[in-house]
Amino acid sequence: MDRITLSHGSGGRMMHELIDSLFIKVLGNVILREKKDAALVRVGSQRLAFTTDSYVVDPIFFPGGDIGSLAVYGTVNDLAVCGARPLYLSVGIVMEEGLEIAALERITRSIARAARKAGVAIVTGDTKVVEKGSCDKVFINSSGIGEVYYDRLSRERIRIGDSVIVSGPIGDHAISVLSKREGLDFGTTVRSDSGPLNRLIARVLAASRKVSFMRDPTRGGVATTLNEIVTGRRFGIALDEESVPVREGTRQACELLGLDPLYLACEGRVLVVVSREDEGKVLRAMRRTAEGRGAKVIGKITKEHKGRVYLKTVVGGKRIVDMLAGEQLPRIC
Amino acid sequence: MDRITLSHGSGGRMMHELIDSLFIKVLGNVILREKKDAALVRVGSQRLAFTTDSYVVDPIFFPGGDIGSLAVYGTVNDLAVCGARPLYLSVGIVMEEGLEIAALERITRSIARAARKAGVAIVTGDTKVVEKGSCDKVFINSSGIGEVYYDRLSRERIRIGDSVIVSGPIGDHAISVLSKREGLDFGTTVRSDSGPLNRLIARVLAASRKVSFMRDPTRGGVATTLNEIVTGRRFGIALDEESVPVREGTRQACELLGLDPLYLACEGRVLVVVSREDEGKVLRAMRRTAEGRGAKVIGKITKEHKGRVYLKTVVGGKRIVDMLAGEQLPRIC
Repeated sequence: MDRITLSHGSGGRMMHELIDSLFIKVLGNVILREKKDAALVRVGSQRLAFTTDSYVVDPIFFPGGDIGSLAVYGTVNDLAVCGARPLYLSVGIVMEEGLEIAALERITRSIARAARKAGVAIVTGDTKVVEKGSCDKVFINSSGIGEVYYDRLSRERIRIGDSVIVSGPIGDHAISVLSKREGLDFGTTVRSDSGPLNRLIARVLAASRKVSFMRDPTRGGVATTLNEIVTGRRFGIALDEESVPVREGTRQACELLGLDPLYLACEGRVLVVVSREDEGKVLRAMRRTAEGRGAKVIGKITKEHKGRVYLKTVVGGKRIVDMLAGEQLPRIC
Repeated sequence: MDRITLSHGSGGRMMHELIDSLFIKVLGNVILREKKDAALVRVGSQRLAFTTDSYVVDPIFFPGGDIGSLAVYGTVNDLAVCGARPLYLSVGIVMEEGLEIAALERITRSIARAARKAGVAIVTGDTKVVEKGSCDKVFINSSGIGEVYYDRLSRERIRIGDSVIVSGPIGDHAISVLSKREGLDFGTTVRSDSGPLNRLIARVLAASRKVSFMRDPTRGGVATTLNEIVTGRRFGIALDEESVPVREGTRQACELLGLDPLYLACEGRVLVVVSREDEGKVLRAMRRTAEGRGAKVIGKITKEHKGRVYLKTVVGGKRIVDMLAGEQLPRIC
């Protein structure tokens, strides 16, 4: 393997190998090695979260969002799942010569609306233009700074018996983008779940001091994110297939296309690991918000199958759910 | 005009118009409106500088640097010219399917080396891959956080009579990239000036409390950056053509290609506006560093020609030096 493939950007195993074998090895420092969604750093006496994400979604407009709102929410959410209050965002735009200014305006307005909705300010930016054919319409990088207000989130705090909760139905974002891109019609339009999680997460963390870990299941989906949680640990995760919320439209699209919803990217969902006794508090806190109305307990941390995620199927079987291996859906975010 | 052109990314007039008429209008807040190289923000009681830049330089390797080192130094310098100590950087990489992994490794090692040289840590990152033909090899976004240690830099502090100093010969970066891209041979190889300015700037600010403003002349060059300083102000800048340092190789390349060095991007030079009486202190502080050995006073702030930059030519004439109007050199950074 001497060239980059789409699988290196899938969020799955090959991406993790590239990150470990190259970026962390060469650039490594204690903060980078933690591989959190946001880096936790200190400036003076202030604890900050700092994160970055590039967005290359194709198409740039899709049901329920666009590359602009996605860039804001994606970065807001990476800060929020690390226990930080998102405050300031940057926006770096790379445009292809010939991009319609009307499209750029629409994206910019969407960025502004998303920033208002999430309660963050866009404070710095950059604009580059490359020749026609040197990039596909527009790519956006968004980096963000947040103030850490809950510093007890860590894989080390996860305990056997903890519950795994998802804040709502999974996979809508991926199906929304895919159906727009491929011009597929499933009868009903599946809208992306893309949205800000910072308020929902603040409520969850106010409701329980026993949340041990959170992560948003973006590229690679719930299956890959849960695998990131268990890899190298002395516990496994038992997923209860029947409990995993999937909307009817998304389920139908998956059946038609032969996709597994567990591997589909969400852009407005969070996975929360919490002590069993606080499971109800977290569920209630989530369900009191519009974005968390569909929250469900989908699994638990087990002593069995250390380092593995396994699914208890509807018919009573068990199967290992691995990290995404190849490339399921490119340019989903 | 209903489509984006290369001029919208040139750093010149059209880019400023796009930023003012769209980004600042739609996304605007007090911090963004200041249009500094870095946003000055507050988290808790801590003052921070926060900046972002996307790098799309073509070719990705050039004499004196590459897209990796450029991404680190460019972002470090944007923090430094705002009076901040650069601390933490993010790196967001968008790669084209088929990119050689050896090239990615070389870039990553260059990022690591540049970060060490500048004394910053890469603490967070992101990797995306797009299909072959959807981006040109690799684009890198780098965002950065710094701790503000000198908060007296502002265009408002500039006074008539202040001196304008440049830290070294101009235009080498642009000529280095251009000659590599076009396969030009000028007899001698011009190496990019790309490098970190944070130490030089710290020395300057330790030497004088009378520095009123700083900016690094990247896209659009010295001419455009000086125009940014005077636009809308009640003073002008008189540039002394004879004093502007240009290396022999760069001067020859400019003559051959019909380029004006004043419009060429530098990536390791800074323009400093300082009270006339501290001019000597700043020059000495710069010249004690390797990167500032060629520092020169190149002009002064004048009561005449308000809002304009004008050049006193070698033969004794005077001409207005405007902001870059169209596109001189695309993909220079």
